Amino acid sequence: MSFERLIAKIKDTKNPTVVGLDPSFSYVPQYIRAKYQGQFADPLEGAACAVLEYNKGLIDALCDIVPAVKPQAAYYEMYGWYGMKTFAETITYAQKKGMYVIIDGKRNDIGSTMEAYAAAHLGTVDLDGQIAVPFGGDALTVNGYLGTDGISPLLKICKEQDKGIFVLVKTSNPSSGELQDKKIGRRPVYEVMGKMCETWGKELLGESGYSAVGAVVGATYPEQLSELREKLPHTFFLVPGYGAQGGGAKDVAGAFDANGLGAIVNSSRGIICAYKKGDWSEEQFAEAARAEAIRMRDDICAHINL
Amino acid sequence: MSFERLIAKIKDTKNPTVVGLDPSFSYVPQYIRAKYQGQFADPLEGAACAVLEYNKGLIDALCDIVPAVKPQAAYYEMYGWYGMKTFAETITYAQKKGMYVIIDGKRNDIGSTMEAYAAAHLGTVDLDGQIAVPFGGDALTVNGYLGTDGISPLLKICKEQDKGIFVLVKTSNPSSGELQDKKIGRRPVYEVMGKMCETWGKELLGESGYSAVGAVVGATYPEQLSELREKLPHTFFLVPGYGAQGGGAKDVAGAFDANGLGAIVNSSRGIICAYKKGDWSEEQFAEAARAEAIRMRDDICAHINL
Repeated sequence: MSFERLIAKIKDTKNPTVVGLDPSFSYVPQYIRAKYQGQFADPLEGAACAVLEYNKGLIDALCDIVPAVKPQAAYYEMYGWYGMKTFAETITYAQKKGMYVIIDGKRNDIGSTMEAYAAAHLGTVDLDGQIAVPFGGDALTVNGYLGTDGISPLLKICKEQDKGIFVLVKTSNPSSGELQDKKIGRRPVYEVMGKMCETWGKELLGESGYSAVGAVVGATYPEQLSELREKLPHTFFLVPGYGAQGGGAKDVAGAFDANGLGAIVNSSRGIICAYKKGDWSEEQFAEAARAEAIRMRDDICAHINL
Repeated sequence: MSFERLIAKIKDTKNPTVVGLDPSFSYVPQYIRAKYQGQFADPLEGAACAVLEYNKGLIDALCDIVPAVKPQAAYYEMYGWYGMKTFAETITYAQKKGMYVIIDGKRNDIGSTMEAYAAAHLGTVDLDGQIAVPFGGDALTVNGYLGTDGISPLLKICKEQDKGIFVLVKTSNPSSGELQDKKIGRRPVYEVMGKMCETWGKELLGESGYSAVGAVVGATYPEQLSELREKLPHTFFLVPGYGAQGGGAKDVAGAFDANGLGAIVNSSRGIICAYKKGDWSEEQFAEAARAEAIRMRDDICAHINL
């Protein structure tokens, strides 16, 4: 009912990072793409097969040193329903290899529809007595613009099935401030949203002191990251923006508490495209990802007290 | 590059309504569910087949009198990737029958990822030279919490491929005010978001005076609906909340301009579950949906000047 399972994995691996599996087609090594090209009537099917092979290679290379992966739904939806099959198979594969899976979907809707999203990504559905697991993630990113009744169905599943959510609070992109930094009274929108996370998480506290309701706070805004760490003591942070988006280890250090916990830092392109930098060959994409994941872990751990 | 295609269909059918295809499993008539139960190793596949048959029956019964359908992604994701196959097939089927398809996904992310969502739901992907259409909707609902760079990739596709988006402004659910009604200076958050829609739409104006950037404004907040109609003269409204959620024809009248245009009103359960009310049999689900769609059209048209 909280992030204890994730925190345990972070402690086991001594690694507070998560690898974003965001397989843009141009990220997939050419030799893998070539293998499936022209093999299927619908090119989306071949693309989805290539992505799955790429993901499996990455997971194999990372599963013993990285606690979690974060597949981003957009990069699977762009291959149509074949992509969603690869999405489901990637989640299952990562979990089989012991990884915690954060589905990055930023889902949001009114209560009754949010129940469907909650069942889809974290829960189960009852089909005339047969219980099925649609995607079965461990945690889901969500957007809280619709307020409490768009979040409640998720809290229920977090409690009953030991899952977590990360609510968008302060995102890593350049224009995030257009709405998020505007002031409501004396507080910026992102802080109001952050406080809502603390409220939503109240009944879902774990032994660590963190609840099942986390927040997304970008590495590209280090001041806000430190400020929010202080103001939201029970809210675990998912921190995007390290690496390709410009955030460094010093920038993310403020996301962590005195014990080096309280946050997990994401890198996507930086890891999964590591083979494109330096002297790696395409065939070494997984080895390169592992080397970069170790470098990132060490970089961040040098700045925190894990 | 605007909503002219949708507006033309509304004029043709003299009907400013859209039917939400939100197939909760309990909405699908029992005789259809029974047909597929136990036929597949994975019960999600049977459920997705049942949903497709249900949707096709509804589309057949509605396509000559209703301009658009709005499949809600959550109710397809809850059947896993089989559900997404049904989602894709539903969109294609509705378009073949001449309907405009609004994908209700409320997608949102940072720029580079939003490009993937835009391609997935409205555009095309280039797979080593082969161009594929992942889902191919005509319009997509989106959440603007991340600001302009999360919206820009959509504007590009709207312009180049004659598509539209609807940004969440004031949602229909009870707790929508928790964030959306809070004041930024003298203006509520929803108005700030509404003004952002006017800005985003500036370069995408159609002959009707409406741009390709619409707004979601709930029927359950009639005052805000009238207020926003006045303040956002170039923003076409998608209005959920009629019927099952409590909004009536009088409540939505304020969403329309003097010519009876400027808005499209959604009903989901009210139409697709119409057979559960009155003397209909399960087998008459499509007939019942058609009768209710006609009643809803006449109810709303009695209050506007279309």
